[in-house]
Amino acid sequence: MQLLGSKVNVVPLPRFEDVFRALARGKIDSAVIPIENTLAGSVHENYDHLLHFDVRIVAETSVRIVHNLIAPPGVRFKDLREVYSHPVALNQCLRFFAKHRKLQRVSFYDTAGSVKMVMEEKRSGAAAIGSSVAARMYGGHILQRSIEDDRRNFTRFFLLYPSKRGRPRRQAKVWKTSLVLTTRNTPGALFRALSAFALRDLSLAKIESRPLRGKPWEYLFYLDFLGREEDPRVQNALRHLSELADFLRVLGSYPSGN
Amino acid sequence: MQLLGSKVNVVPLPRFEDVFRALARGKIDSAVIPIENTLAGSVHENYDHLLHFDVRIVAETSVRIVHNLIAPPGVRFKDLREVYSHPVALNQCLRFFAKHRKLQRVSFYDTAGSVKMVMEEKRSGAAAIGSSVAARMYGGHILQRSIEDDRRNFTRFFLLYPSKRGRPRRQAKVWKTSLVLTTRNTPGALFRALSAFALRDLSLAKIESRPLRGKPWEYLFYLDFLGREEDPRVQNALRHLSELADFLRVLGSYPSGN
Repeated sequence: MQLLGSKVNVVPLPRFEDVFRALARGKIDSAVIPIENTLAGSVHENYDHLLHFDVRIVAETSVRIVHNLIAPPGVRFKDLREVYSHPVALNQCLRFFAKHRKLQRVSFYDTAGSVKMVMEEKRSGAAAIGSSVAARMYGGHILQRSIEDDRRNFTRFFLLYPSKRGRPRRQAKVWKTSLVLTTRNTPGALFRALSAFALRDLSLAKIESRPLRGKPWEYLFYLDFLGREEDPRVQNALRHLSELADFLRVLGSYPSGN
Repeated sequence: MQLLGSKVNVVPLPRFEDVFRALARGKIDSAVIPIENTLAGSVHENYDHLLHFDVRIVAETSVRIVHNLIAPPGVRFKDLREVYSHPVALNQCLRFFAKHRKLQRVSFYDTAGSVKMVMEEKRSGAAAIGSSVAARMYGGHILQRSIEDDRRNFTRFFLLYPSKRGRPRRQAKVWKTSLVLTTRNTPGALFRALSAFALRDLSLAKIESRPLRGKPWEYLFYLDFLGREEDPRVQNALRHLSELADFLRVLGSYPSGN
């Protein structure tokens, strides 16, 4: 909804790989995938798919993950005995459970699904932990808002188009470009690669190394910097970088969402 | 077991923060925490705790995550109807479930716990997904080994001591040092910081940036490089780095486990 508005037709698919395949084959117009979480780190699987499928990043957004205690209307807090949710969500609300020891945690397949189940089955004494969107969608009542231990819980999402589809026209002051590169594991290899940006006063917004399993001498880097692919200064930096990297792929340029 | 042998007395605690607190207060001698997974990324929470508690990294190891289908002895594969495990583990075996459509996935609090439950309750037609260690511990029979979709699933663990405890004496050819630093978000800040290593031919083994929420102009970097804190060349690099960084903390030097 943040990226495409509330009228978009949503097509859920079971695995990230299925989402990328459907997009590359033209079965869907665009895709939204999570790429990193402030507590849990980067979603390496989706970086792999960004390299292996013919798609481009065209926008980004960040969503704050808020966990709410949700029950059918009329259920009171003191009636509750069991709280259903995904184990990761249950584990992110440990202070809440430490304070309310009579509440039993029950793990469920996902957060929105636990809200749906609690609303449909109307089991007595049962609540779920989920988002306010799930509460609204299934008619649940929020008994307690924001019960997560750590509020610095944000997930960053990319909007993807098939590469051949034209990019959306956007106006933005600050643009970001994401790329993946590999270098040999020689001392100073990354230092030299970063000179392509430093010598042109381009700011980095993210850098992350990932060892390539099975190729112990090679590293892969995820890199975001501020700038737009069409900007001549960025073009020069990318040309310079391609001299220094063994492999380089631009994943997309998009208005900075932070 | 990889880090301390099988005779160690294990003290499980509910949250990572509890582990760090118990270690810092001397209630336990050492601690083992996960720091990154090849599919799921870095465990940022534990990097935060490494900064906020008075502890040191003294060793590292990597564990390959293998998912096995485990049932009570005598149960045959064709009798199975339900498979219990943590949803993350269930989601990492989707090819297996696509091939065996009659098997229903049931989410459970954790992988080892699902093996324990299936063994204790001996529900007919039920199996669990877990490690071979869990199968051995609870007397389960492995019906099918390594049913995970992606075998490049490794988790890296650190062994921690309280800072005041002497470090274990170890011989090793290759040492690693882990540190955290922050720089202002000015173009070239990271480039300059990395010069401290590049100019001394010290190889990086990991680098990762993390935006500091609430301080949009500041970044925090996790950095591992090959070398031992006591080595004069490393001492020089750290002195140089401390001139360039706003904040610098060495988290420990330890024999390279890769």
